[in-house]
Amino acid sequence: MRLVPPETKPHTSVARLEHHWFPVCFSHELKARRPLARTLAGTPLVVFRTASGEPAALLDRCAHRNVPLAPGKVTGEHLACSYHGWEFDKAGRCQHVPGLCGDLDPERGRRVPAHAARDQDGLVWVYSTADVAPVREPFRFPAPGEGYTVARREVFAPGTMHATLENALDVPHTAFLHGGLFRTAKKRSEIRAVLRRFGDRAEVEYIGEPRPSGLVGRLLSPSGGIVTHFDRFFLPGIAQVEYRIGDENHFLVTSACCPVRDFETRMFAVIQFRLRLPGALVRPLLEPFARRIFAQDVRALAQQSEVIQRFGGEQFESTELDLLGPQIWRLLKAAEAGETAADPDALEYEKEIRLLA
Amino acid sequence: MRLVPPETKPHTSVARLEHHWFPVCFSHELKARRPLARTLAGTPLVVFRTASGEPAALLDRCAHRNVPLAPGKVTGEHLACSYHGWEFDKAGRCQHVPGLCGDLDPERGRRVPAHAARDQDGLVWVYSTADVAPVREPFRFPAPGEGYTVARREVFAPGTMHATLENALDVPHTAFLHGGLFRTAKKRSEIRAVLRRFGDRAEVEYIGEPRPSGLVGRLLSPSGGIVTHFDRFFLPGIAQVEYRIGDENHFLVTSACCPVRDFETRMFAVIQFRLRLPGALVRPLLEPFARRIFAQDVRALAQQSEVIQRFGGEQFESTELDLLGPQIWRLLKAAEAGETAADPDALEYEKEIRLLA
Amino acid sequence: MRLVPPETKPHTSVARLEHHWFPVCFSHELKARRPLARTLAGTPLVVFRTASGEPAALLDRCAHRNVPLAPGKVTGEHLACSYHGWEFDKAGRCQHVPGLCGDLDPERGRRVPAHAARDQDGLVWVYSTADVAPVREPFRFPAPGEGYTVARREVFAPGTMHATLENALDVPHTAFLHGGLFRTAKKRSEIRAVLRRFGDRAEVEYIGEPRPSGLVGRLLSPSGGIVTHFDRFFLPGIAQVEYRIGDENHFLVTSACCPVRDFETRMFAVIQFRLRLPGALVRPLLEPFARRIFAQDVRALAQQSEVIQRFGGEQFESTELDLLGPQIWRLLKAAEAGETAADPDALEYEKEIRLLA
Repeated sequence: MRLVPPETKPHTSVARLEHHWFPVCFSHELKARRPLARTLAGTPLVVFRTASGEPAALLDRCAHRNVPLAPGKVTGEHLACSYHGWEFDKAGRCQHVPGLCGDLDPERGRRVPAHAARDQDGLVWVYSTADVAPVREPFRFPAPGEGYTVARREVFAPGTMHATLENALDVPHTAFLHGGLFRTAKKRSEIRAVLRRFGDRAEVEYIGEPRPSGLVGRLLSPSGGIVTHFDRFFLPGIAQVEYRIGDENHFLVTSACCPVRDFETRMFAVIQFRLRLPGALVRPLLEPFARRIFAQDVRALAQQSEVIQRFGGEQFESTELDLLGPQIWRLLKAAEAGETAADPDALEYEKEIRLLA
Repeated sequence: MRLVPPETKPHTSVARLEHHWFPVCFSHELKARRPLARTLAGTPLVVFRTASGEPAALLDRCAHRNVPLAPGKVTGEHLACSYHGWEFDKAGRCQHVPGLCGDLDPERGRRVPAHAARDQDGLVWVYSTADVAPVREPFRFPAPGEGYTVARREVFAPGTMHATLENALDVPHTAFLHGGLFRTAKKRSEIRAVLRRFGDRAEVEYIGEPRPSGLVGRLLSPSGGIVTHFDRFFLPGIAQVEYRIGDENHFLVTSACCPVRDFETRMFAVIQFRLRLPGALVRPLLEPFARRIFAQDVRALAQQSEVIQRFGGEQFESTELDLLGPQIWRLLKAAEAGETAADPDALEYEKEIRLLA
Repeated sequence: MRLVPPETKPHTSVARLEHHWFPVCFSHELKARRPLARTLAGTPLVVFRTASGEPAALLDRCAHRNVPLAPGKVTGEHLACSYHGWEFDKAGRCQHVPGLCGDLDPERGRRVPAHAARDQDGLVWVYSTADVAPVREPFRFPAPGEGYTVARREVFAPGTMHATLENALDVPHTAFLHGGLFRTAKKRSEIRAVLRRFGDRAEVEYIGEPRPSGLVGRLLSPSGGIVTHFDRFFLPGIAQVEYRIGDENHFLVTSACCPVRDFETRMFAVIQFRLRLPGALVRPLLEPFARRIFAQDVRALAQQSEVIQRFGGEQFESTELDLLGPQIWRLLKAAEAGETAADPDALEYEKEIRLLA
């Protein structure tokens, strides 16, 4: 048809990361005998827990007649398909075909691709490449310190993993999209930001930042004090925001992304904080605030995804305020190409800018 | 975009059968003056009954401005379009253009493709090739014998015609998908099955089969007896299941498929049975049971279709228990290629296997 | 997949008209500070009114992170994006990036394509080509005469602009699709129609037409009289129907189309009439009648669009009764090719036919 919007570069910031671990659910969600259907990077998976308590992940397609395995049943160490009862072990080998006389050779073709799976830090992690032994371990969440309040939360973002990470770690949008709640567009002062890229991560440190204005600022630190603020990205899809305000207040949110499909990202967030006010008091006050912030981010990501898909690609312009987004994409692209930093902790790039905050 | 499931062979078991008859509705559904919209193998058709009682089938697209003809009206032997009133006869020729002065040459271009249509065995059959004289007759349903209860039923299956036929004629899935209702996975004994392929059909005979266990077995034959069980496929899309248990109980289900679209199949089933118990008593007992069986099959077919479409093709593995499925596909492919058996009744292939039932 | 309807020419009567003006909303709908999302020929636009009252139209995609601009805010003469607050002027130049230190060069890349916009005759018109100075002016609606009743109405047609215009200006369908309401298929007499095509428009004059039968005829002219009837098309997408019945009754409907997408057209109609009966009395009587006529047209256009899309193209046949449709397409195609008539008022083609009305 002839009526089309203006031409656009067909590029979209979607990377396919082989040989990396992504979370697919919280560990407590994966009950014995109740397989879950999950999608990782467009690939439908069935995730289940065998009788021995081990998590397992197979391609969600029976080798026999291609029905999904997720509606099936866990029987001991096997998963049985709901259609004809074929049974697969956690390595994807068919171990039983009901009705068949004689022995079954489990190596003979009737296989389902299998992904390594692991319980760690309260999450079930799945390795993104099938039928191989993992070359690395899942990301380790920071251990919660003494006296910290900890909350866990799963959210679904209608954006690419890159757009979701950039949004989670981007400061300038907070004054607009979340105007009034977090930062305000008025009363700005000049501060400094230092961007650092390492072999497997990147961070921005904000220096001279005033105590956050708006409701949340007053809640986080009624007394004021010097603000330390870091935004960090870790490969393959971790976003971390850290605030210290004075000596008493520490706020750390670590979110692990699962790239579900090109424009769908699942985020598993662990929120750890220690404030002057007691956690049990602050938590119910922060909850509706966090929900509203997130709803605004979700709306922006959904609108962005819709426009990108409508135009068939991204057409982004950046300024020096876009600190982490381009670095995250650079690290994702290198990881997609299989490039691994010789020394993950080596500082590869550093830059300082001034901005109005 | 980059995030995709594993590559798959692009094959799907969909055959396009030219020069064959398929049912599109029960005869009583096609009322005088009430055209019906039906789809046969992806082609939208309008099916109608003229004043003389004859069924007719045209492409459901007016030759003038391409609106569908199904919302139109039957006027005598013609079908009149609802937009400008153009009238077509059952051969698809335009016989009247309202408002036009002078004579109309019905041979001049303004045609709609027409398919042969026929009432037979209580069904309206449509020939799959347009604008030709049929080279064969529709399938003949077996005449119901004396003292038989007969029921008719139309069901819609969300699967390819091949998957729907395989499902209808497949024994091993009954112990799992319909576990408890029909067969059970436990208490199995070894029996024999003989597969035979003829020129235009294939059948499996089960020898030594125990009386079906589960609820339906007890209902079909409270007294037990020797079981005779045949599953049969006839070109182009007929599935037949026959059970005899002892001398008194005979159960015959013949289903004619209409391939609506690649993953949609309409089935017109005629159920004929004679049991020791009176039909009027058994029928209301069998009804909910049949509905439940069919709902389970529909769910499995829908899941299978979804996975096949998601992966862009089938990736099937079979064992020797998959008796009729591969034979049906072989016959459908030959029919699609226009190959007709010299002698439809000649036995082309025979095989015996042992299985646990 | 294999199951497909008959092959069809891939042609669809969709023209892309560069350098033409199309209406996108009524002027009163475009409030200060409330941007509107509109689509013109498949291109998403944000239309807004600046503080000075001028209408403006930009591509609905922020140059920064590609979220739509329509959810943004008008700030003075700028439109501010809702995500990071980037501000664009009506020429599409980025004039402010919140948080950025130092001066911004508005010519440097960060632009959004801009379309000329204008308030005229109660409509907001947008030029179909971005970032250029208009080469012509929007269509001028006829000024309402003394003593006329005027009504405005926006309708949405689920058809191509060509199909919508043909439907609006087509006489033969009225006896069928609107049978009984407007014309009836019975009691026809032979009349004449004269078709004339000029450089930028086409018209049909009906001669000897009886007073419209049916309800609306009696309402429009209770007293009868000589009927003058013109149907007119003006480039790029204007349909006009004019009736005079006797000296007292004059009825003029002028509709300007906006091609939203291939199969979606928005129509802005201005109805002007002067009848023997007082306008305030006739209007509430005509209203439900017009609604019903239009609902029938919408249904026919939706069915037509569905069939065309299902078959992947149009397969139209015409008779000499199809007077304006082919001429409209000829004019649209010439306009799409950028051909402009040397003298728009020159008569290029004339033909007279007889028809039964």
